[in-house]
Amino acid sequence: MTESHCTKDIQKNISSSSSAPVPVSSPSPVFTELHPLMASPENNPSQEDRVEGQSGPAGPSCLHTAWSRFLKGVSYFSGDMEVFGKWMEKQFLLLQLLDWVLRGAAQVMFVNNPLSGLVIFAGLILQNYWWALNGFVGTLFATISALILQQSRGAIAAGLYGYNGILVGLLMAVFSNAGDWYWWLLLPNIFMSMMCPIVSSALASINTRWDLPVFTLPFNILVCLHMVATGHYNHHFPQVLIQPRSELPNITWSEIDVAKLFRSIPVGIGQVYGCDNPWTGGIFIISLFISSPITCVHAVLGSAVGMVSGLALSAPFEDIYFGLWGYNCVLACIAVGGMFYALTWQVHLLAITCAFFCAYLGSAIANIMSRFGLPACTWPFCLSALTFLLLTTGSKRIFKLPLANVTYPEKNLAFYWKLKKQEKAEKAAKESQEQLNAEITLNEKEQLKLELQRIEEGRQGSENNNTNVEETNRGDNSTELVLADYV
Amino acid sequence: MTESHCTKDIQKNISSSSSAPVPVSSPSPVFTELHPLMASPENNPSQEDRVEGQSGPAGPSCLHTAWSRFLKGVSYFSGDMEVFGKWMEKQFLLLQLLDWVLRGAAQVMFVNNPLSGLVIFAGLILQNYWWALNGFVGTLFATISALILQQSRGAIAAGLYGYNGILVGLLMAVFSNAGDWYWWLLLPNIFMSMMCPIVSSALASINTRWDLPVFTLPFNILVCLHMVATGHYNHHFPQVLIQPRSELPNITWSEIDVAKLFRSIPVGIGQVYGCDNPWTGGIFIISLFISSPITCVHAVLGSAVGMVSGLALSAPFEDIYFGLWGYNCVLACIAVGGMFYALTWQVHLLAITCAFFCAYLGSAIANIMSRFGLPACTWPFCLSALTFLLLTTGSKRIFKLPLANVTYPEKNLAFYWKLKKQEKAEKAAKESQEQLNAEITLNEKEQLKLELQRIEEGRQGSENNNTNVEETNRGDNSTELVLADYV
Amino acid sequence: MTESHCTKDIQKNISSSSSAPVPVSSPSPVFTELHPLMASPENNPSQEDRVEGQSGPAGPSCLHTAWSRFLKGVSYFSGDMEVFGKWMEKQFLLLQLLDWVLRGAAQVMFVNNPLSGLVIFAGLILQNYWWALNGFVGTLFATISALILQQSRGAIAAGLYGYNGILVGLLMAVFSNAGDWYWWLLLPNIFMSMMCPIVSSALASINTRWDLPVFTLPFNILVCLHMVATGHYNHHFPQVLIQPRSELPNITWSEIDVAKLFRSIPVGIGQVYGCDNPWTGGIFIISLFISSPITCVHAVLGSAVGMVSGLALSAPFEDIYFGLWGYNCVLACIAVGGMFYALTWQVHLLAITCAFFCAYLGSAIANIMSRFGLPACTWPFCLSALTFLLLTTGSKRIFKLPLANVTYPEKNLAFYWKLKKQEKAEKAAKESQEQLNAEITLNEKEQLKLELQRIEEGRQGSENNNTNVEETNRGDNSTELVLADYV
Repeated sequence: MTESHCTKDIQKNISSSSSAPVPVSSPSPVFTELHPLMASPENNPSQEDRVEGQSGPAGPSCLHTAWSRFLKGVSYFSGDMEVFGKWMEKQFLLLQLLDWVLRGAAQVMFVNNPLSGLVIFAGLILQNYWWALNGFVGTLFATISALILQQSRGAIAAGLYGYNGILVGLLMAVFSNAGDWYWWLLLPNIFMSMMCPIVSSALASINTRWDLPVFTLPFNILVCLHMVATGHYNHHFPQVLIQPRSELPNITWSEIDVAKLFRSIPVGIGQVYGCDNPWTGGIFIISLFISSPITCVHAVLGSAVGMVSGLALSAPFEDIYFGLWGYNCVLACIAVGGMFYALTWQVHLLAITCAFFCAYLGSAIANIMSRFGLPACTWPFCLSALTFLLLTTGSKRIFKLPLANVTYPEKNLAFYWKLKKQEKAEKAAKESQEQLNAEITLNEKEQLKLELQRIEEGRQGSENNNTNVEETNRGDNSTELVLADYV
Repeated sequence: MTESHCTKDIQKNISSSSSAPVPVSSPSPVFTELHPLMASPENNPSQEDRVEGQSGPAGPSCLHTAWSRFLKGVSYFSGDMEVFGKWMEKQFLLLQLLDWVLRGAAQVMFVNNPLSGLVIFAGLILQNYWWALNGFVGTLFATISALILQQSRGAIAAGLYGYNGILVGLLMAVFSNAGDWYWWLLLPNIFMSMMCPIVSSALASINTRWDLPVFTLPFNILVCLHMVATGHYNHHFPQVLIQPRSELPNITWSEIDVAKLFRSIPVGIGQVYGCDNPWTGGIFIISLFISSPITCVHAVLGSAVGMVSGLALSAPFEDIYFGLWGYNCVLACIAVGGMFYALTWQVHLLAITCAFFCAYLGSAIANIMSRFGLPACTWPFCLSALTFLLLTTGSKRIFKLPLANVTYPEKNLAFYWKLKKQEKAEKAAKESQEQLNAEITLNEKEQLKLELQRIEEGRQGSENNNTNVEETNRGDNSTELVLADYV
Repeated sequence: MTESHCTKDIQKNISSSSSAPVPVSSPSPVFTELHPLMASPENNPSQEDRVEGQSGPAGPSCLHTAWSRFLKGVSYFSGDMEVFGKWMEKQFLLLQLLDWVLRGAAQVMFVNNPLSGLVIFAGLILQNYWWALNGFVGTLFATISALILQQSRGAIAAGLYGYNGILVGLLMAVFSNAGDWYWWLLLPNIFMSMMCPIVSSALASINTRWDLPVFTLPFNILVCLHMVATGHYNHHFPQVLIQPRSELPNITWSEIDVAKLFRSIPVGIGQVYGCDNPWTGGIFIISLFISSPITCVHAVLGSAVGMVSGLALSAPFEDIYFGLWGYNCVLACIAVGGMFYALTWQVHLLAITCAFFCAYLGSAIANIMSRFGLPACTWPFCLSALTFLLLTTGSKRIFKLPLANVTYPEKNLAFYWKLKKQEKAEKAAKESQEQLNAEITLNEKEQLKLELQRIEEGRQGSENNNTNVEETNRGDNSTELVLADYV
């Protein structure tokens, strides 16, 4: 009876010990960002602990319980909705597919949350039915293509193969010159969406060498490819005409419209999905807040930085109002500020710097791309965020998370704090050990002093002193000085 | 005496053990694609086996012998002409150089066969004497430069340093606006050809990190460099004028010429070498068939896919007739379809997808390059093939060959089948072992049941049961359930 | 006793064999070029040895002493001024910062010498006060930013974070269309300078995978970014108008001005810093000579190659006179000729080839960049030098130094010679051992011959011969032939 129990334990130990080194030794897997975290539901309470930690000293026990229940309730639909995701795993495939599509829609903003995805689709429908349809088709076929190509199921379930699809679908509809409800457009839309996982996988093969994500590079490549392959004059798939600016737009500062300027912040967030409706942008802000307040704050901050940069570089006001200066900065600010780095004050400043750099880069890339009749897409975000993620620094306060441990800013922060606590504990253990040694040395010093006094009184008993000397040498140098005087 | 002997042995062991990991740790060598295969002449019969395998059940013994003799004869001038290559190694250097140049000419199409190279040169001469001369000079000087720079002799002998040279030589002549027999052109031709091995080697240093070939990237880089450095208005080396299309070419589907459309398939294959003569294209098809029928089929298929894509994207008919939509797809389809992946149905579909993607990309790159007065060269092929080779997938039917084992599709397939057979054999061995274990467990189960009956009759003799339990635990869980009932 | 000795020897052998591959396998650290050298002051005399070695057989002892004293004096302000650098480490931070800024100014030409930096600033002031100020501000803020981002202190002290800053500052002033003393320009200047270490660090993360430096890529990226983001028509930061050449500039060879052509050589060197004043160029040549004569020679050579290439490709004379064909070749020729490769005749030829390739590439890139209103910057140098540094070759005379051991050409050469001497010594030791073995074998051979004679006289005593045979087999094959005749 006990024996059988015992062997079971051993089996468990073996299996756990064999699974433990896997995340360490495996050269960080391409898209398994949520894999290791899904396997450990006990990580979830850490978030509650953190929020509690912020809420100051613990209140009365009753309130405390209510608060923790509230947080438990919140955790069901905020963050990455892990519990829901686990429940989904046992459902019908079509229902699962819907979950993946919704998560894919939200992953554009680095949010792995089907509820946020639903809210985002609501925002898209508010903007334009036809665009929303194209976005849905894009996400769906990108996910299906990933399934056909047998990509990592965990990455598919996290929506990591869908977000390029939704952007491809949406932006191909946005930049099409054939008008809404031109059904033929679905053909290249489906083809390009299905190419997404191929391009994603290829880019991931390169980027994982530096433990970097692919961001929206597949979308950028595929939409630019489609637009430049067809162009404005194409008979089947004409694109809107984008031309380089060569004239001198007159800017009179008195004409500035402050209301529009402030409205450009939500519009900038909406422009991530190519939407210029401020209400749509507002809905997107809500969808971000549902999943992660830190992401939400950085999104708003990024959009504001973009607007300011536009004014600083004397961009035409119309472009700023239209949110064209904001959307790249939004994404760059989210990515650096808490998503791929653990959020500290230094990282927060880095995120803002990155947003400014991204705005600069955005202007540059828009000017270059316009020569080919292309929009800037999210190239500026990709390039600036990759640059800032490749940064190496001696500072310990700028901590880049391993790609496999990235989830959402709050959880990332908890992960970082856990790591730091461990380090501190180890350090403290070491220090206490050293202090112990130092105390022993101090005692020996005192003994030495006593002996010195004795020696000065009359030279005697130097033999057992010598044995002390040897032990003292392991201490610090000051004792040696004493000895130097003494010998 | 024996002791010194002993230490020597130990030293030997140490040195041998330290030298052993070297081939493991060395990052897969740059261009040794044919090296490991040249060393194993016993690989050759495997091709025969394969073809026999295809020819259905073995006929009468006499026919069988005749057939295998015929295949033996065929193997002398098909594939990579290994026997001829080995014979060549002992010849005079100039004769060897000729072999390398001919192989280099064929390597543009991934064919390592001097006979194919000879046929290709015949096709070039049919097209234009001056172009053929430039192509020959390019191949020759690229190979000489590789010799001077002491590149891998195996790669040089396989023509892997010549194929960029022939393309550089040919296309510089094709795009020169100075007319034929402008002898000064040989100067930049020789300079650029001699730069080929340098650029090849540099790119290989990068690409081998992902076990990728350099394809025709050196040619693309060097020809574009020459053309854009000089341009249309240069006094010494003027280029043909290439301008971006900005007007609206009217396409009336009634004007389509089906005969020309079909002729565009061989023309597309000819355009790989910049030739628009359909007969030249036909000769190239023959040269491909000599070495590898699979390559030949994919070349034709690729050209057809290119033509269809051109129609789908409403390209001007003239461009399609001229083969401009075909040549990149030809190369992409060959590369993915059997050359760098082992040919299965899944890979065949992937190759066709790649050809479609390549056509799309071709249109995009042609539009961008025309802004700088440049042709698309084979950039679309390189980029699309590299993307598809970087693809990682969970499917076992999409098997990318290690770069060092790539030869020609038929041999690659044999290599893949051999690997699969080995795996199967290992699996079968494992399974039979497991079955044996399971049977033992079953016997133990039956024994247990007997014991149970005995126990139910009267509790007795539980001691020797316990010993069985321990052994049973190594089996499966169902026995544990039995035990749970029992205890 | 003997046994313990024996085991110790074995341990030594093991440890030496296990420690030997470490420097090979270690991925050379990012920017520690001067680190390992600072730690070893005994490296310095090697330079003197080298120069002595060049000065032929040793003269009288008195002259010899004077000469070595002179060299000792020279070593204080030539090369990388190591002694001064070490003294600086203990100074006040602001003084240190000045040292770093001066070294940064010189590092554009790969010179790590504050005196050269001072001379270069003198040249810049001679050219234009405003530009010199911008250059100083750029270097200063780039260095400060590197300090804030806690980059490697050794790299900062070597000026490796400053050289991109000086170029960013200078060239933003040079290409600004707002005229001199437009103080607002300092704002983007400071921002872009502070971005330098970020972009440097990011690029270094990529380039170190191939043990490559980042060269002036951060400068190229940031200046192009600033220029294309603002453009000619910007209200705040207008840029000079750069347009693509489309007309046919008439070139009449009789109009060539040989004096100007020769003056284009120093002008080309001046253009590395964007200066067209030949005197400034001359001052720069002096600054190069102070630190490293080899660098100086290659700079002049590169400029000359650029001029010749310009004539060969029928460039407008004005461009050649203005030094636009020279500056990239100057840098490429310095980088390949002795800086990153150890200087041998083969490397010298490679450097000249690289300069020609760089000139070609320069023309190509200038034509492409002009479409976007951009200058060529030093893209051609970066791309051509990176290509030539990625080259792998079987030749032992083309030795690429590990990035961590790169200092200045003379010291690099000393390092290479030291390595070669070590190799030779090891080889000689091996050979003498083999010769010893061979002699033993020869003695055995002679013994065999004697025995043969004896046998021919009368067949006798073949038993002890057999034992000899076994030992002889370890020798060479010729003895086996003898034996074959004999048996």
